[in-house]
Amino acid sequence: MNAPHDPSSAGAVLAQKAHFDAPLKLRGGAELAAYDIAYETYGELNAARSNAVLVCHALNASHHVAGFYEDNKSNVGWWDNLVGPGKPLDTRRFFVVGSNYLGSCFGTTGPASINPASGRPWGADFPIVTVEDWVEAQARLADRLGIERFAAVIGGSLGAMQALQWTLSYPERVHHALVIAAAAKLSPQNIAFNEVARQAIMTDPDFHGGHYYDKGVVPTRGLRIARMIGHITYLSGEAMAEKFGRLLRRKHLGFDFDIDFEIESYLRYQGDKFSTYFDANTYLRITKALDYYDPAGDFGGNLSAALARARAQFLVVSFKSDWRFPPSRSREIVRALLDNRRIVSYLEIDAPGGHDAFLLEDPRYHSALRAYFANIDL
Amino acid sequence: MNAPHDPSSAGAVLAQKAHFDAPLKLRGGAELAAYDIAYETYGELNAARSNAVLVCHALNASHHVAGFYEDNKSNVGWWDNLVGPGKPLDTRRFFVVGSNYLGSCFGTTGPASINPASGRPWGADFPIVTVEDWVEAQARLADRLGIERFAAVIGGSLGAMQALQWTLSYPERVHHALVIAAAAKLSPQNIAFNEVARQAIMTDPDFHGGHYYDKGVVPTRGLRIARMIGHITYLSGEAMAEKFGRLLRRKHLGFDFDIDFEIESYLRYQGDKFSTYFDANTYLRITKALDYYDPAGDFGGNLSAALARARAQFLVVSFKSDWRFPPSRSREIVRALLDNRRIVSYLEIDAPGGHDAFLLEDPRYHSALRAYFANIDL
Repeated sequence: MNAPHDPSSAGAVLAQKAHFDAPLKLRGGAELAAYDIAYETYGELNAARSNAVLVCHALNASHHVAGFYEDNKSNVGWWDNLVGPGKPLDTRRFFVVGSNYLGSCFGTTGPASINPASGRPWGADFPIVTVEDWVEAQARLADRLGIERFAAVIGGSLGAMQALQWTLSYPERVHHALVIAAAAKLSPQNIAFNEVARQAIMTDPDFHGGHYYDKGVVPTRGLRIARMIGHITYLSGEAMAEKFGRLLRRKHLGFDFDIDFEIESYLRYQGDKFSTYFDANTYLRITKALDYYDPAGDFGGNLSAALARARAQFLVVSFKSDWRFPPSRSREIVRALLDNRRIVSYLEIDAPGGHDAFLLEDPRYHSALRAYFANIDL
Repeated sequence: MNAPHDPSSAGAVLAQKAHFDAPLKLRGGAELAAYDIAYETYGELNAARSNAVLVCHALNASHHVAGFYEDNKSNVGWWDNLVGPGKPLDTRRFFVVGSNYLGSCFGTTGPASINPASGRPWGADFPIVTVEDWVEAQARLADRLGIERFAAVIGGSLGAMQALQWTLSYPERVHHALVIAAAAKLSPQNIAFNEVARQAIMTDPDFHGGHYYDKGVVPTRGLRIARMIGHITYLSGEAMAEKFGRLLRRKHLGFDFDIDFEIESYLRYQGDKFSTYFDANTYLRITKALDYYDPAGDFGGNLSAALARARAQFLVVSFKSDWRFPPSRSREIVRALLDNRRIVSYLEIDAPGGHDAFLLEDPRYHSALRAYFANIDL
């Protein structure tokens, strides 16, 4: 994190909101009559409108990608180590857009928003949204901002799925796609973890079938368990071993059910924290968006056929210690792109951080991104 | 599973119960004044009392290792594919003992038993029991059965920890130890999964701090989540992919929160089933027994030093697709035994079944066990 006076910080930023009145038809069949998209921008759009980069966020992040808020300087953007003046994604050269996905609880219209049909929060009635829907909404935001083509779309994990989908939904609107810590679809084990998290939330007595907003409760217990499960899959076993080992919280084993090992303390803390700020209905929908994403699905499982319409140039990055989306999943994407004679750079980094490595400041990773962005012609 | 008339079945068996009045001092400091141990035996103890084999069970199993019950023929023992006349652990030659661990909900004294001090179920007051305590109790059962030395002690997973501990607690009482799908201690990732399961149980409103027996409820929701999490770690990603892939339950994605993928259906089924028959307080204690086991702990983490007192001969077996206790964990045990010039056979099997492979009938695995048992001198 950067101190506010750090010259490489994007500085004090403002969250903005764009309202859209044209109905958005969703992949699942439902239609959103109107919606807001929360977003932030860093840097300046050049006269040719050729220097825009869209940053797509993953599970629990938001449009607050870089910089800080004037009234809350410690609230630094989630990818602040990457985005700023002189940083790998250099805001002196690029106009960076962070956009919050549909269904979020951070400003974009989502389950906690008011359903115009009822005048009450959507709750369980908010539709299931997909990666494809998110790209659709982002495209409308791009129209609003006057961006015809992005110099690059970048994302990690679920954000990488959006970057990939951009090259399929709008092949002509993406010059470069940076697809990091990605999978072209979830494995059944990935789906299994998501399903346990969903069941923890949905069986929490405070869930009330998704209509908890006017009950004065939130399914904290379920969200907490969901986050703990998720966290295990974001970290590598190696990183956990190195960071926590079998370190005890107390001097000796307690022979009770208080915290014995530091890893337990860490997980409980992560779960507690998450359950105070994240919305359960959003969590449910994000995991479904992950489960449902499968661009090869309409092509009999043939990813090469699915990616044939992509026109972008690609940088694909994976991390060896990522067991949620291991390098083999990225290599599937690379192979499918090469089958289509796309220009692809592929980087497999032997970093210990697991799936979350895409958020960390590994020097090899960051210097590769720096070089890649520097070589993008505007 | 064998039909009851199968000549290789151990046949109709009877669960037995041994009562012990001599107090058992537990590792955590508590003392059990008296307790019962549920057990079963198959085959006959020979005149020399040299042919006894102790089978140690893992998480959710019991003393019902082989055969079936006359009044419930479909209730076949959990390791029936291994134990019976003519099977790898041949009951025509060996006297096999299955013993249910302390704290269980299947007959041995546990949290649902009556606490003599209060006249009510122990519940939360039942002490935390450890692998070492289980071996202690099993040793007393062996005394009762007139078994001075076991020809072999065998177990998989948590059962393997007991087999290993037997060679440390009673080096002279174990001729051979068969240590299968084992780890000499849990990794922080292993502990993390256990902790999420525990938190799911303990935050279930029906848990009542562990005193739910007289409340007319059980923490079904928590147990269900705990089992779903566990199940993911028992299966390999490959096996899940092969068995379920991304198969849909309905023809199309539902765009709702009903079951979309078959893997979801499978997990919910496993969770539902488990939560109807397993006791939450037992589950909590078993996961603690796993977390706490670390024979090298008293030796500054030096496993070779910890295993120096073992006198048994060893067969160590691991499975390549086991990501809960991968082969590297078994190799640590093998190395430590070799450091002590123990006689060790090590087998690493390229079977797809994950951690649960130790329960399955892989021909290479079973023929190795068959050969090993056949070579044991009685």
